[in-house]
Amino acid sequence: MKVHVSKNQLADVLGHVERIVPARSSNPGLSLVRIKLEEQLLVFSGSNMDIDIEAQLPADVTGNGEIAVPAGVLGQVVRALPGDDVELSIEEQEMGLSSGTYSTRLQLVDPDQAPALDFEDSYDGLLPAPALHRILSNVRYATATADYQAIFRGVKLELSDSRTRAIASDGFRLAYDQVEESSGLDAQVVVPARSVDEMIRVLGEGEAQLSANASQLSLKSSGIRMNLKLMEGTFPDYERIIPHEFPVAVSVNARELSQAVSRVSLMADRTTNNRVDLFVHEGTVQITAEGSFGRSQEAVTVQQEGSEHEIAVAFNAKYLTDALSPLGGRARISLSRDSAPTVMVDPDAPGYLAMVVPLRTT
Amino acid sequence: MKVHVSKNQLADVLGHVERIVPARSSNPGLSLVRIKLEEQLLVFSGSNMDIDIEAQLPADVTGNGEIAVPAGVLGQVVRALPGDDVELSIEEQEMGLSSGTYSTRLQLVDPDQAPALDFEDSYDGLLPAPALHRILSNVRYATATADYQAIFRGVKLELSDSRTRAIASDGFRLAYDQVEESSGLDAQVVVPARSVDEMIRVLGEGEAQLSANASQLSLKSSGIRMNLKLMEGTFPDYERIIPHEFPVAVSVNARELSQAVSRVSLMADRTTNNRVDLFVHEGTVQITAEGSFGRSQEAVTVQQEGSEHEIAVAFNAKYLTDALSPLGGRARISLSRDSAPTVMVDPDAPGYLAMVVPLRTT
Repeated sequence: MKVHVSKNQLADVLGHVERIVPARSSNPGLSLVRIKLEEQLLVFSGSNMDIDIEAQLPADVTGNGEIAVPAGVLGQVVRALPGDDVELSIEEQEMGLSSGTYSTRLQLVDPDQAPALDFEDSYDGLLPAPALHRILSNVRYATATADYQAIFRGVKLELSDSRTRAIASDGFRLAYDQVEESSGLDAQVVVPARSVDEMIRVLGEGEAQLSANASQLSLKSSGIRMNLKLMEGTFPDYERIIPHEFPVAVSVNARELSQAVSRVSLMADRTTNNRVDLFVHEGTVQITAEGSFGRSQEAVTVQQEGSEHEIAVAFNAKYLTDALSPLGGRARISLSRDSAPTVMVDPDAPGYLAMVVPLRTT
Repeated sequence: MKVHVSKNQLADVLGHVERIVPARSSNPGLSLVRIKLEEQLLVFSGSNMDIDIEAQLPADVTGNGEIAVPAGVLGQVVRALPGDDVELSIEEQEMGLSSGTYSTRLQLVDPDQAPALDFEDSYDGLLPAPALHRILSNVRYATATADYQAIFRGVKLELSDSRTRAIASDGFRLAYDQVEESSGLDAQVVVPARSVDEMIRVLGEGEAQLSANASQLSLKSSGIRMNLKLMEGTFPDYERIIPHEFPVAVSVNARELSQAVSRVSLMADRTTNNRVDLFVHEGTVQITAEGSFGRSQEAVTVQQEGSEHEIAVAFNAKYLTDALSPLGGRARISLSRDSAPTVMVDPDAPGYLAMVVPLRTT
C-alpha cells in the first residue's frame, strides 16, 4: 500500500509523539510509534506510561492496517528527507519512505509489542484552548522540583461550574490563574508538571475537549488526543493561607522591577537562598543584595499605598522574578511584615495571583 | 578614580577573557581577571595556563594602577547592566560599577594572586588574519578527541618562507589547508585544539602578528594578545602517506553529496562505525547504509573520470561529511581500492586537501 503525505505535516505529527515516547526504555515496546491506517487517515500513537498521545494525519489511505516502528528512528528519517512530499509504502515486513532520489526501508515491529492505548471517543467538557494554555503556562513555574512533597510536583486543576483554575505551589510560593468560564466538568485533578508541559505544547487555537476520571485527565485539542495519568494525594487547602490585609502595597512596572531584581541578585550568594532585600519608602523600592564578591543596589519608582510609611522584606530573587514573569504590564504587590506572605496580582487583568513567602531575616 | 566606558565594548573585551579564565579552579588566583589602568587605557588579562590572553580597551583613564576581580562575576555584572554606559570607580578595597539607577561594588583581590603574564612587545611574523582564520577553521574538525596519540589533539602550523599550512589528523583522516603566503617566520608548531578554537575566535579582520619559540606561539590580532602553549612531540610525516594515483575520480556538488550521505547514514549503526557504502558507476554515486532498523539509499550525479569503470568504497559517514564541510562548491574526490585513502580537494580553490581512510569491508 502506498500513501502520499507532506513531509512537514508528517514531521509535525511525529514531533508530538516523539516528545512523549522514550528514545530508550527497558521495555523496548515503549519506544515504538503505532501507526493505524484508516480510510483517508494515518493515526500515530505512543506512550510513556504517564502520557498517552495520539495524533491524526489526513492522507490518501485506502484500506486498513496497523504497523509499528521505533518512533525516534522514524522521526529522524522524516526530518532528514530532501523533498516536500513523502511516499510511504507499507509492505509485509518493511515500511518504505522515499522522497526525491532518497529512500529508506524501515523494518516493521509487531504492533502488539507497543502499549495498547485507549483514547476517548467523546468528551464531557469544553474550554477555549488558549485559556487553558494561559492558566497552565502562568503557574507552571511554581511547581516543586525537589522531593519536598510529591503532590507539589503537579499542577492542580479546579474545574467547577463557575470557573476553571490552575494552581501550583512548592510550599514556599504559590501561583494560581483562572478564567471565569466553566468547562462543564466538576472535578479537581492534579496533573504531573511534565504532563502539564505537554498539554501546553498541544494547546493551540480553537477548543480543548476534556474528560476526567479518578485516575486520568483526557484532552483533545488541535487533532491530538492525550490521556494524562493523574497524581495521587490531596493538594493542600491553599486559600486559607493567602493573606488579605497588608500594611503596604505598591503598584510597579512588572518588567522593570523584575529586571532590577535580576541584576541586583547577581551579588547574592546561593548559600543565602539568592537573597535580595526590598525596602519600600517614599514611593521607591530600594533593592539590595550582598555576598562574598561584593554588593549591589538599584531603586525603582513605585506607587505606594497602605497604612504604614515603609517596609523591609527579603526574598529569594528567583521567586520574585518567577512570580512577576506572567505579568506584562503593572504588578500590584501587597507586602507584609514578619515573614507573612507577599501577594502579587495584575490589577488590569484579574485571574492571576502569586504568593511568595519572604526569607526569614532574623 | 572614575573611568567611563561603553557597556558593549566592556562586555566584548571581558567575553574574550572569560572564555579563557576558568570559572572555578583549585588555584583561586586563576579565576581572576587582572585590570591594569594606564594612560587612556584599560588592559584586561587572564590565563588558564595553556592560553594567556590580554585585551585592551581605550578609556578616559588618568593615572596608573592595577587591580584584580573574579572574571566570571565581573562579566555577569557587566552583561546585566541596564544602560549603554558604565562608570567604573576604583577605590582602595572596591571597584564600583554603576549604570542608570543600578550600582554594584565588587571587592578587589590582590592582583599578585593572579598569574603573572608576559606578552610580546614586538612580533616577528605577519599574516592576514582572515587567511589564518580560514586555514585553522578548515582543518580543526580532523583533530583527535580520544587518547589515541596525544600529538593528534593539536593542529600543526607549518610556517615557511613560501607558504603557511595548517594540518590536523586523528590517524584515520587528515586535513590540511594552506595559503601561498609567508608569515616571515620559519617554524613548525603544534597548537592544542582548544587553543586553536580561541585563535579562531580572536582572528577577525586586518592583520595577525605572530612570534614562536620552542614552547609558545604568540599572537596579536584585533587588539588582543595571546600566548598559546605548544604541544610537545613530533607530528608524523604525513605527506608521504597521501596517495597520488587513483583508479577513479569524481567531481560532485559537495553540499549535495554531504547531505545525501547524512540522510543515508541515519540507518547506519554506531557499532559499524556509522558505515555508508559508496558505489561509483556510470556517472552516479550510489550511497547505501544498513543497520538494525533498516536500510536506506540515495543516488547523486557525478562527473566521473579514471582508468576504471566502477569502484566501491565504504566510509564512516561522519568522516565524509566532515571532510566535505569546508567545500562550498564542487569537490573533486579521488578514490582507491583496497582500503587505500581517498583524497578530496576543491578544484576551484586550491589549498584545502582532505584524506579519509576507508573502512575495511572484508
